[in-house]
Amino acid sequence: MDLHEALYTTRAMRRVKPDPIPVEVQQRILDAAIRAPSGGNAQNWRFLLVESQEVKDRLGPLYRRCLGMVWDNIYKDKTDAAEANPADADHAQWLRVKRSADWLAENFESVPLYLMGFCLGDPTGGSIFPAVWSAMLAARGEGVGTSLTSAFMLAADETLEVLEVPQDEGWIFACCVSLGYPTGRWGVAPRTPAHEVTFKDRWGQGLDFEIDGPLWKG
Amino acid sequence: MDLHEALYTTRAMRRVKPDPIPVEVQQRILDAAIRAPSGGNAQNWRFLLVESQEVKDRLGPLYRRCLGMVWDNIYKDKTDAAEANPADADHAQWLRVKRSADWLAENFESVPLYLMGFCLGDPTGGSIFPAVWSAMLAARGEGVGTSLTSAFMLAADETLEVLEVPQDEGWIFACCVSLGYPTGRWGVAPRTPAHEVTFKDRWGQGLDFEIDGPLWKG
Repeated sequence: MDLHEALYTTRAMRRVKPDPIPVEVQQRILDAAIRAPSGGNAQNWRFLLVESQEVKDRLGPLYRRCLGMVWDNIYKDKTDAAEANPADADHAQWLRVKRSADWLAENFESVPLYLMGFCLGDPTGGSIFPAVWSAMLAARGEGVGTSLTSAFMLAADETLEVLEVPQDEGWIFACCVSLGYPTGRWGVAPRTPAHEVTFKDRWGQGLDFEIDGPLWKG
Repeated sequence: MDLHEALYTTRAMRRVKPDPIPVEVQQRILDAAIRAPSGGNAQNWRFLLVESQEVKDRLGPLYRRCLGMVWDNIYKDKTDAAEANPADADHAQWLRVKRSADWLAENFESVPLYLMGFCLGDPTGGSIFPAVWSAMLAARGEGVGTSLTSAFMLAADETLEVLEVPQDEGWIFACCVSLGYPTGRWGVAPRTPAHEVTFKDRWGQGLDFEIDGPLWKG
């Protein structure tokens, strides 16, 4: 696959089939992930693949509780506004994201594979998320859909207990990636143009160019 | 460029020529970056391109001071051990990384471009580092070398002051990426094999397969 196709079309693909991910595909995804950089090349990362139905059955209720907290505490106003005026394009987009996230929560136990990322001594996340994103891009190259969520952090202790993560070694849960063969289509997700979120030389000073993206059209 | 070539060969390229990065290349890098996911698709990211010699001249001394703190406080034992026994392969590799990082510090002002990443309300880094890593992969596709450093965090207040980042809006400095045309060659960096850093279903339980990487050979 072309690099830019992967960079542009690896959108969140939460609705997936229950079909398992072949071992060879899992291997290629993991091997690509660990090529990412980490501070001092320390590779202070651990990955945990969850494929066992028993473990997924224990994580599912936790995830639904966490996502409920996300909706109630972080996104309540945004959702209320969107539901009050769903004809607005941004609102409609938000309601699509929310339905997609709810689908994942409701079907958590039927997703074939999860990849959990953990880090040690990494206050910024800069030594775990390049590897996690590489895993997601490599999955895209295999036709495997992914989505990234850190919602489990809202029940971190219980999540670590289910996964039997030791309490005394300092490993921090960074994120959970769902993986599966998508039911929907790949595409370029809408974004605020780059020149609206980029400054030049000092904060607040605009670029001397605009970027009429997406520059990759497929 | 092939996705896997980018994922496998985007190693830290700190030694770069002073030649400027053309505007069209900057545009493609930024446009690729913003296609990355972010929590709730909030895109709570800002990027700051530093190309002005005046700003680089103010950042250079700060960076050298920060990197000095990194060597003295975080990696002193590792460096001492490596210098005591440089014939060991891991030690030799570490000394190469250190020399490369020192090159960047000593030549900070001659690197043509820096991309600073900032985030808001992103405790894990999961909503900024996918975008930053996409920028680095897109740069690789353009033949532009990059390296990722968060060392400026050790002088965060002064860095934000130089960049004129407002104190009251909550934007957090996440990282600095150096960009330039490399003097060295691209290649696959050494890594601990994926099966040694990946568990299955619960912490401490090994995968039922090994991964004899790199699986992408070029």
